[in-house]
Amino acid sequence: MRMESPSDRLLDVHCVAVIGAGAFGTALATVALQAGGLASRRVLLLARRESLVEDFKATGRNDEALPGISLPEGLVMTADPADIEHAGTVLLAVPSQAQSEVARAVLPSIGRSADVVVCAKGLERESGRLLTDVVGETLGRQDIAVLSGPGFAADIARGLPTAMTLAAADMDQAHRIAIRLSGPSFRLYAAEDRIGVQLGGALKNVLAIACGLIEGAGLGESARAAMISRGLAEMSRLVTARGGTADTVRGLSGLGDLVLTGTSHQSRNLRYGIALGRGGAARNTASGELVEGALAAAIAARDAEARGIDMPITKAIAAVIDGRVSVHAAVEALMSRPITQE
Amino acid sequence: MRMESPSDRLLDVHCVAVIGAGAFGTALATVALQAGGLASRRVLLLARRESLVEDFKATGRNDEALPGISLPEGLVMTADPADIEHAGTVLLAVPSQAQSEVARAVLPSIGRSADVVVCAKGLERESGRLLTDVVGETLGRQDIAVLSGPGFAADIARGLPTAMTLAAADMDQAHRIAIRLSGPSFRLYAAEDRIGVQLGGALKNVLAIACGLIEGAGLGESARAAMISRGLAEMSRLVTARGGTADTVRGLSGLGDLVLTGTSHQSRNLRYGIALGRGGAARNTASGELVEGALAAAIAARDAEARGIDMPITKAIAAVIDGRVSVHAAVEALMSRPITQE
Repeated sequence: MRMESPSDRLLDVHCVAVIGAGAFGTALATVALQAGGLASRRVLLLARRESLVEDFKATGRNDEALPGISLPEGLVMTADPADIEHAGTVLLAVPSQAQSEVARAVLPSIGRSADVVVCAKGLERESGRLLTDVVGETLGRQDIAVLSGPGFAADIARGLPTAMTLAAADMDQAHRIAIRLSGPSFRLYAAEDRIGVQLGGALKNVLAIACGLIEGAGLGESARAAMISRGLAEMSRLVTARGGTADTVRGLSGLGDLVLTGTSHQSRNLRYGIALGRGGAARNTASGELVEGALAAAIAARDAEARGIDMPITKAIAAVIDGRVSVHAAVEALMSRPITQE
Repeated sequence: MRMESPSDRLLDVHCVAVIGAGAFGTALATVALQAGGLASRRVLLLARRESLVEDFKATGRNDEALPGISLPEGLVMTADPADIEHAGTVLLAVPSQAQSEVARAVLPSIGRSADVVVCAKGLERESGRLLTDVVGETLGRQDIAVLSGPGFAADIARGLPTAMTLAAADMDQAHRIAIRLSGPSFRLYAAEDRIGVQLGGALKNVLAIACGLIEGAGLGESARAAMISRGLAEMSRLVTARGGTADTVRGLSGLGDLVLTGTSHQSRNLRYGIALGRGGAARNTASGELVEGALAAAIAARDAEARGIDMPITKAIAAVIDGRVSVHAAVEALMSRPITQE
């Protein structure tokens, strides 16, 4: 019987498991490996398909998700959920509507003391529930954290400077996870307003559609800036009504993410809005599916109506998407409201 | 003696006088003529040079300021300050450092009951004082209003949708002026935080340089979004310390204007930052002069130091402009600060 070597003692090494080898998951695994808050770490990237693991072993890249980007030495990719059982941090980096299903699938491998982090933006379809609540219910625990904010996967993976928000049930947990994952190029700010962070991440997609609509209709950069500013004001109203804080909306996960999504042509929601603004049919996206922001617009407009909250931009966007009003009629209605104070 | 005709009774017609026939002044005169809040109005545009008035009479345009844009019927351009004496609203649309001098020059023609509005962004050079204070001192009154926010002159003049902020000493005055100037495409929001509105208008130029610097150095759109978000947080700290409110910073005149200036290549401050980020010499702007944001960076960095306020981005930008640190050293320093909460 050989002596146990230090590298075998996995429990002494902090293990970060990233579930989902898409662009965002792969990027998070990359920065987790370079994070400065841990003396020694192991990062596992769990892919759904074995073929991705084989490709990675052959090329050192994940070309399906992040074409041409070499992944760092030491990254371990696997397709076996059992491999994550020693993970102290579990990052759920799968699409928003798959979070619950994937959480259920990996549940047997997640330790009770592991920090579990939702790394997706959006609300549960139909119900409009927060993803931390959905995943928390699936896993039978209340302390699910969430990572959100302005970060394109390619920027993160390339080591370009990025700052995002890590919100948890309490500030101790938030700080602990933020320090564990932050590194030289990837900076996490701790927060405890999970409601505000998640609503910001979902609602900014609605406003990104509005930005696209303004661009597509040729209404100018001043109009876009005004829309972003007034849009954040109404986003704050809904966040506050749902128990979050307005300050969160003005932080990285609200304003910051909106600026990124609303001004970068890398954003699907923006491109969808541009097509709408040019008079394109609302449901003709490339995939045939509505973008995240179109779903969020309907949820938020309904929610605002039910709570009696004034959200003129969100309601206008939902109406344009439904084909109930034209882009120009919507803009005219927004511009002719009574003059008020900010 | 002939009977007085209605058109002669100028005092029954509200007269808006715009001082300064540059791009912004000409645009404001255009929308003032279309504003909906007055039954009958007269708009005078006061140019410094008679040649502009002659050109306008010949072409119906002000091609020096707004090339190719036809100005509306009814606009009166003049070079004689005495013509503005019946104005009920006087808009000072001259560059920030000329506000005081021009106010002094037109002082004899301004009625005591006229609303006077500063339509420029910036702080007094050296002193860092607000322009409403500077102009107020010159005119010997305290009730100078200010118009600020995200509006490119060309967008405004073309009738594209624009929303800006009108801040005055009290809300009644702010509402009165806002309603008087708002029209179908130009929407003013009333406010009474003149400090926050003006600091926002000046400090957003600092952050626009930072946006340019990030773009010029190739640091990515995620980094720019993070900078805008964290930059607004530190802008709020200075505004609050100087007696303004943080909410103003998050409105049209702060965030809204920053989004416009920081993401549009029409902005001189952004272009200056891009050149800096590419390693260009800091003082080599086309005009040989520092842009507004470079002056504001120095003022704000000094102010923050004196007040003990944490403004790492502003200080870093001031240091890069002075050539004290490199762009990459500044970014590295910003990214390696201790992890905090938002």
